[in-house]
Amino acid sequence: MSNYVLNTWYPLAWSRDINNSLHKRRIVGKDLVLYRNSAGNVVAHVDMCPHRMLPLSQGKLKGDVLECGYHGMQFDCSGKCVRVPGQDIIPSNAVVATYPTHENMGLVWIWMGDPALADTSKVYDLPQYHDANWSSVEGDALEIGCHYLNLADNLCDPAHVNFVHLTTLGSSAGEDVPVHHEKQEGKLITWRWINDAPAIPLFQKFGNFKGNVDRWHYYHYHAPSIAVIDFGSALTGTGAPEGNRDDCIQIYACHFMTPVDEDTTIDHWLHVKNFKASEETNKALSAEFRSAFQEDKVILEAIHQNERKYPEHRPIKLAIDASPTRMRKMVQGMIEAEKAPAKEAVAA
Amino acid sequence: MSNYVLNTWYPLAWSRDINNSLHKRRIVGKDLVLYRNSAGNVVAHVDMCPHRMLPLSQGKLKGDVLECGYHGMQFDCSGKCVRVPGQDIIPSNAVVATYPTHENMGLVWIWMGDPALADTSKVYDLPQYHDANWSSVEGDALEIGCHYLNLADNLCDPAHVNFVHLTTLGSSAGEDVPVHHEKQEGKLITWRWINDAPAIPLFQKFGNFKGNVDRWHYYHYHAPSIAVIDFGSALTGTGAPEGNRDDCIQIYACHFMTPVDEDTTIDHWLHVKNFKASEETNKALSAEFRSAFQEDKVILEAIHQNERKYPEHRPIKLAIDASPTRMRKMVQGMIEAEKAPAKEAVAA
Amino acid sequence: MSNYVLNTWYPLAWSRDINNSLHKRRIVGKDLVLYRNSAGNVVAHVDMCPHRMLPLSQGKLKGDVLECGYHGMQFDCSGKCVRVPGQDIIPSNAVVATYPTHENMGLVWIWMGDPALADTSKVYDLPQYHDANWSSVEGDALEIGCHYLNLADNLCDPAHVNFVHLTTLGSSAGEDVPVHHEKQEGKLITWRWINDAPAIPLFQKFGNFKGNVDRWHYYHYHAPSIAVIDFGSALTGTGAPEGNRDDCIQIYACHFMTPVDEDTTIDHWLHVKNFKASEETNKALSAEFRSAFQEDKVILEAIHQNERKYPEHRPIKLAIDASPTRMRKMVQGMIEAEKAPAKEAVAA
Repeated sequence: MSNYVLNTWYPLAWSRDINNSLHKRRIVGKDLVLYRNSAGNVVAHVDMCPHRMLPLSQGKLKGDVLECGYHGMQFDCSGKCVRVPGQDIIPSNAVVATYPTHENMGLVWIWMGDPALADTSKVYDLPQYHDANWSSVEGDALEIGCHYLNLADNLCDPAHVNFVHLTTLGSSAGEDVPVHHEKQEGKLITWRWINDAPAIPLFQKFGNFKGNVDRWHYYHYHAPSIAVIDFGSALTGTGAPEGNRDDCIQIYACHFMTPVDEDTTIDHWLHVKNFKASEETNKALSAEFRSAFQEDKVILEAIHQNERKYPEHRPIKLAIDASPTRMRKMVQGMIEAEKAPAKEAVAA
Repeated sequence: MSNYVLNTWYPLAWSRDINNSLHKRRIVGKDLVLYRNSAGNVVAHVDMCPHRMLPLSQGKLKGDVLECGYHGMQFDCSGKCVRVPGQDIIPSNAVVATYPTHENMGLVWIWMGDPALADTSKVYDLPQYHDANWSSVEGDALEIGCHYLNLADNLCDPAHVNFVHLTTLGSSAGEDVPVHHEKQEGKLITWRWINDAPAIPLFQKFGNFKGNVDRWHYYHYHAPSIAVIDFGSALTGTGAPEGNRDDCIQIYACHFMTPVDEDTTIDHWLHVKNFKASEETNKALSAEFRSAFQEDKVILEAIHQNERKYPEHRPIKLAIDASPTRMRKMVQGMIEAEKAPAKEAVAA
Repeated sequence: MSNYVLNTWYPLAWSRDINNSLHKRRIVGKDLVLYRNSAGNVVAHVDMCPHRMLPLSQGKLKGDVLECGYHGMQFDCSGKCVRVPGQDIIPSNAVVATYPTHENMGLVWIWMGDPALADTSKVYDLPQYHDANWSSVEGDALEIGCHYLNLADNLCDPAHVNFVHLTTLGSSAGEDVPVHHEKQEGKLITWRWINDAPAIPLFQKFGNFKGNVDRWHYYHYHAPSIAVIDFGSALTGTGAPEGNRDDCIQIYACHFMTPVDEDTTIDHWLHVKNFKASEETNKALSAEFRSAFQEDKVILEAIHQNERKYPEHRPIKLAIDASPTRMRKMVQGMIEAEKAPAKEAVAA
């Protein structure tokens, strides 16, 4: 039985990458083939012909119809078979499973659960992404060889920043500053303030601070696979901790995680910031993030390998694990709720 | 327990490749070492010294005797140990299993079953191969990462040609032409005619047809591992469908399959044709086949991967599956007959 | 349950390779991180933070304290946690397992068993290594893809030399000379003399014999993972077999085996010889050994693959297997003795 939340909108691919040819993607352990049809919508089928199991991504797109590369069976955008060469009758079980998709914030989102529950108004949105006073820069689709909940741990965990990202996002000033968290409906916020300290390396490069700053990190986790980190700095004394952020640098670092399978996660990351910058500066900023996330990748993959090698190991718990622990309980609760009888799940 | 037919002559290697040095081959999940002895016969032993399991292919051939590379045990062509350095008594269990071989049509054939049943008169033969009016060109030993019965499916299935081999062996004219088949003793013939249509790309290159042609494909499958495809074309109106093939191009495309193991098959292919051609033309013809079989390889390997990943998947059945389905029943019947008590098997 | 002798000093690494940075090693299936502390001692921890399982070798050495690279937990040389950033209380289970080490003969030795039994006076020593009349040359850390007891077989087996090492250490003269062995407490000696025969290729290069020689090979195996081969030659007629070795070439070829895991062994080899030589000659001598041990590696890895593929195979036994068979019984006896109740083990 699947051990994933299914009734949720997952980020699957950058919209920019999906055109009217055939694209392979994998999510919750399922191989999919994607294409953009003539109406501009993204079609997502299981990537396997029901006849001889050839991946449909090795077939051909003929208009909006996908033709299998082995014997020419054709499937429409709904997954229904519309042609079997050599015979007139189309078997009633000649269908490929197809999943609802929706696009927002430059991404294709997919619903792997009960299609009757796929409400596109629930697709994640960050209002600032659409705000003319803010600007956004798309990042990469970073593949990490770990379970997506290990990446989610990392994104409910401000404490690692001071040890992992010393050249970009962290500084030793924060090593002993405690972390707070608060659970909300389907959401978890983890945060801390590090006040009256030098700016982190990133803001020394891109800000222009002439003294110590107050720095905040708010990790907004939306179960199961979205994390948006609101972080920024303002000159100490300008009242940022009390709510006055008129003169600050603020960035929403978005991590849209695709749970590929038990061993693989793709982190679609982008940043939305309260200032505009030249393309060159945007590229430099992305390069800093890319370098930082590469540091996370190395750590998460090493941990994943050890978890595979030593499945019996029971990690010790520290104070900073409070938020990741709640995060995992929240996700487990969602999975169990889905496995309860169907009617109750709908009612919930 | 082995899930292969054993009492049969399997194609194992090109004769041209086996000389008086040591060659590794693998068939029905067994590693073998081959060499040609001074009498010119091909010797095939299990490739493992019974002492410390070193592959004998890492030893030395001393005349007709094979010496293990670790402690110098020597085995003759029958697999009997004839020397143990450091001791005079040769243990009675110091033998390596050895299998009967025979050569025909440029290939070494091997009998992996009961040696008492190994009748060389039953080795497959195509009479035209020896006919001075015909000519043959040896192809490759194409390794395909799939079970050999998936390749056999493909070789009982004329319908895939129109979708997989559009630039060589097929054309869209045949997409909806139905397929026929007939079972005979240990044999299955699958065929169709595509009449009054343009020649396929291959025959446009190598034939000289000035109009539409009648084209036939007869797939002769000899269980478990031989497929010979009789295909050809004649100008429409010259009576080919009625049996008059005086003025036609005809090719026997032979596929001699080695079932290496559950995940690997080697297709020794060659073609025998009713015309002679320059070496250049023969090479060009082989290049066309090579390109077509590469297309099959890509498809068969993708299917094999999906069969491994999704063992619970039940493919839907189409009309064109009738012949492959019978083929598999035939092979399964042979395997079960062999597993019946030994005396009955011999009687059969 | 571990299938290794644990209460023994194993060779782990060349001392020359371990400095005050972090080094990964693996032994008896456990990953370790090593470093040399400010007192000059080699510290060996399990290479995994007890918090989130990150390998500690991906952390930082801060003085003698090892800091985890994920959240900055710090561990001292005894494995005790001395800092958890963000909290004052250190959990009592925040420790990493640490193993006793000792250095001798250019190697770091480690005790993976009960630390109360780790008596450094029991670390292996070859007196000639420290003798001014002898000289030694360190070799490599040769990784072999096999179980260490298969290498140990090889090092209780003079008979293979005549077939495997014809260009260096063996010659056909010895093919049929019988092998002797004698068991002592925790030790096994296997030997043979090959008298009145031409010198082996190695001694033809590095000795200066003007006639036939008497050659001895004494394989001293110290269970479970040390083999020291005393071999040499003297002119026939000078009385070497009777004990007079005044004018001879003698080499102790030492093999200090690290049982990495079930599939991997590292052979730390060096030679100690009764003559001094130029650096150039020493290098040439090492090159000969390197070439010979590469021949063993090829054989041992091929055997290991076959043992994995055909676990049901029962090798036949020859006369030359008497010593390896006793060796394996000796090691199995040590493992079983350790698994007996703890008090008895200590008493033993």
